[in-house]
Amino acid sequence: MSQSKILLAEQEIPRQWYNIQADMTNLPPPPLHPGTKRPAAAEDFAPLFPPALIEQEMSTERWIDIPEEVLAIYRLWRPSPLFRAHRLEKALGTPARIYYKYEGVSPAGSHKPNTAVPQAYYNKQAGVKRLSTETGAGQWGSALSLACSFFGLECTVYMVKVSFQQKPYRRSLMETWGAEVIPSPSDRTEAGRKVLAKDPDSPGSLGIAISEAVEDAVLREDTRYSLGSVLNHVMLHQTIIGLEAKKQLALVDDYPDVVIGCCGGGSNFSGLAFPFLADKFAGRKVRAVAVEPAACPSLTKGTLAYDFGDTVGLTPLLMMYTLGHSFVPPTIHAGGLRYHGASPLVSQLYRDGLIEAAAYPQGDVFASAVLFARTEGILPAPESAHAIHGAIEEAKECAKTGEPRTILFCLSGHGHFDLASYDAYLSGKLENAYYAEEESKRALAELPEV
Amino acid sequence: MSQSKILLAEQEIPRQWYNIQADMTNLPPPPLHPGTKRPAAAEDFAPLFPPALIEQEMSTERWIDIPEEVLAIYRLWRPSPLFRAHRLEKALGTPARIYYKYEGVSPAGSHKPNTAVPQAYYNKQAGVKRLSTETGAGQWGSALSLACSFFGLECTVYMVKVSFQQKPYRRSLMETWGAEVIPSPSDRTEAGRKVLAKDPDSPGSLGIAISEAVEDAVLREDTRYSLGSVLNHVMLHQTIIGLEAKKQLALVDDYPDVVIGCCGGGSNFSGLAFPFLADKFAGRKVRAVAVEPAACPSLTKGTLAYDFGDTVGLTPLLMMYTLGHSFVPPTIHAGGLRYHGASPLVSQLYRDGLIEAAAYPQGDVFASAVLFARTEGILPAPESAHAIHGAIEEAKECAKTGEPRTILFCLSGHGHFDLASYDAYLSGKLENAYYAEEESKRALAELPEV
Repeated sequence: MSQSKILLAEQEIPRQWYNIQADMTNLPPPPLHPGTKRPAAAEDFAPLFPPALIEQEMSTERWIDIPEEVLAIYRLWRPSPLFRAHRLEKALGTPARIYYKYEGVSPAGSHKPNTAVPQAYYNKQAGVKRLSTETGAGQWGSALSLACSFFGLECTVYMVKVSFQQKPYRRSLMETWGAEVIPSPSDRTEAGRKVLAKDPDSPGSLGIAISEAVEDAVLREDTRYSLGSVLNHVMLHQTIIGLEAKKQLALVDDYPDVVIGCCGGGSNFSGLAFPFLADKFAGRKVRAVAVEPAACPSLTKGTLAYDFGDTVGLTPLLMMYTLGHSFVPPTIHAGGLRYHGASPLVSQLYRDGLIEAAAYPQGDVFASAVLFARTEGILPAPESAHAIHGAIEEAKECAKTGEPRTILFCLSGHGHFDLASYDAYLSGKLENAYYAEEESKRALAELPEV
Repeated sequence: MSQSKILLAEQEIPRQWYNIQADMTNLPPPPLHPGTKRPAAAEDFAPLFPPALIEQEMSTERWIDIPEEVLAIYRLWRPSPLFRAHRLEKALGTPARIYYKYEGVSPAGSHKPNTAVPQAYYNKQAGVKRLSTETGAGQWGSALSLACSFFGLECTVYMVKVSFQQKPYRRSLMETWGAEVIPSPSDRTEAGRKVLAKDPDSPGSLGIAISEAVEDAVLREDTRYSLGSVLNHVMLHQTIIGLEAKKQLALVDDYPDVVIGCCGGGSNFSGLAFPFLADKFAGRKVRAVAVEPAACPSLTKGTLAYDFGDTVGLTPLLMMYTLGHSFVPPTIHAGGLRYHGASPLVSQLYRDGLIEAAAYPQGDVFASAVLFARTEGILPAPESAHAIHGAIEEAKECAKTGEPRTILFCLSGHGHFDLASYDAYLSGKLENAYYAEEESKRALAELPEV
């Protein structure tokens, strides 16, 4: 039997991130200032982000150097392993070769530190003392807490109150890394106080938490804001995933016919797929599939339009496939994929037919997650399980046609903090959930006029 | 800066386990039958274990081949990484070089699958259909559930009822891998029914759970029992840890002055230390330190005597350092180290002055765990944190003396399921706990007469 684990030596870690903006024929239209509705300039972002990140957000340089200080941290868990899923292939009876890149080896348990670490670094370089951010389920808040602890930055995480109450362990994890975790809505911000005045028992929402984190950053000179998905510089940092995977597949003389990633805001999908799309731009045949939940199908069912990044409507307007910024998706267990839009870069690529998308209901996704856990051992995060399910669907097709396709997917994180979902699935309490078209129609009617 | 992660290629995985019984001048006295008090024969173990494991238990062969089927599973996460703790060293201002072998990369999150997998394999080979075991905090039950899912064996885990209720996520993890998890005491066994008749609300104990699991195995022809520590064959399987670590240190031209492992029953400590003791037997200078909790200090405060392996008194008598099989240690967060005795092999080595032992209170241990998490990123299990604390104490001594000692410890697992303990520590609710001498005196007075 050939190898199960394809490891890259530490010195083989990529030294540059890949910026897909250098190769796209059509770039997404620029973000618009939410007030003037005119293209936002670098200085509009200055209260939120340090100069280096604003520059990366707008850069069209193909390769951007990874600072040595960031590489030193990356090396604590990177290069991450690439696995050949021999046991899953056997269980499926497929002639396909299935590989997965496993990002759950990071201390925070997902791919999120790939961008949290450089974001913390560039802020530190710019003399920032403190970062504010929001978190829903807790993956992003954990990653930024970890990154801030590495660079000696203070970190304040506004955590959606209902999650804060239901997921005390995520909070403890962030606190262990030294972060301050505030249940949102809080009385720390004007935004929070407004919500509490209307409804003292508000369970909070990601939209409210974003507003609080942004307000916190804007009002304090020593503080900036940090975002874990959607923006160009986040996608850039995540390309380390795909760059490593290419090197690892080359070690076993293979190349994917199709690469598959789960897609909420788009950072995990982009991280895996963009370096392969670089080859596609150069004429190589490779498919890329973004897998989203049927409960929140922004690419497959959304509309391409300028929309707010947050629910409240404070952020710059971004051109993206969206279900409407006020769209409320059904409660599903893959909390990290419950986002109303897809990143502008992913949206543009989808519009131009360079990538594909598929949406699956969570019951089917969990069935694949359990099959994966019982064959490959690793317990996947519900978000990551969407990519697993996409890969299994491809592999089943190969079983029918006999085609020995090479399938690569990203296992974006482990599910150690998601066992309540598995419990619901195994006890038959987890149901398939689909987005309501009427709800999206209502939300799309509230798109901002441009 | 030199490497952070020292990886071993998949083909470098050891092909044999190291059996320390081949090299010990003094072997532990044999186990005694609990009824006759005479040395137990192989057939006495037959209702509990398959022939291959009984043979390993008694073998004095130096090297024992790892079956190819076991290697195929090991390869899903092995060789595990060896890390150089650059950032921890810097935080401590120590001239010591600190390395740690990280076993948390296994799907179950600890070193336990190193023995669960071969145990499941040998049972499968012997035609066994089903394994029974007990679990307290859940680490061992998780590992055996995983191993059984790999080999298509049924698995029944008797889980201490209070843990079953307080740790539903551990249960869900075992169920995801296909195991049946029974809160103990249960009405499935005579032992359980007896306890319930006396006290329908019994919270259970590890001792009761062992009795249930053993009874289950003995009464069913298709079922055997599986144990995660203490016995010789368990120590044997865990030596893969130290064997890999030796190869990895050789890659960077280093060798430890001291190796450190946490010690409850002894499987993690033995796994790391025994392959280095092989060198010590051959004349090389190397220290080995077993770190136990001050709340349950069987090596540092116990008595060397024949005692039962379980609380109820059903198992063969083993010669070990013990606090008495009826000793009830204070409740501490490192549940995996709350065992009244140390494995016969570890006990004999300690008696012969070949290894050292140290005991630390949990408050100090958690302080080290948090320092580790904030410098190296990984959140350690409370059990593993004992080894971290031992290593930090050594490194601090080096900082005083200026001696550039090489320190190697085993990080036996991650703490993703232990965040309630961190929460208690960070909120100041976790106190140092020490064993009560009177309680051990009482328990030692109940040692069986031989």
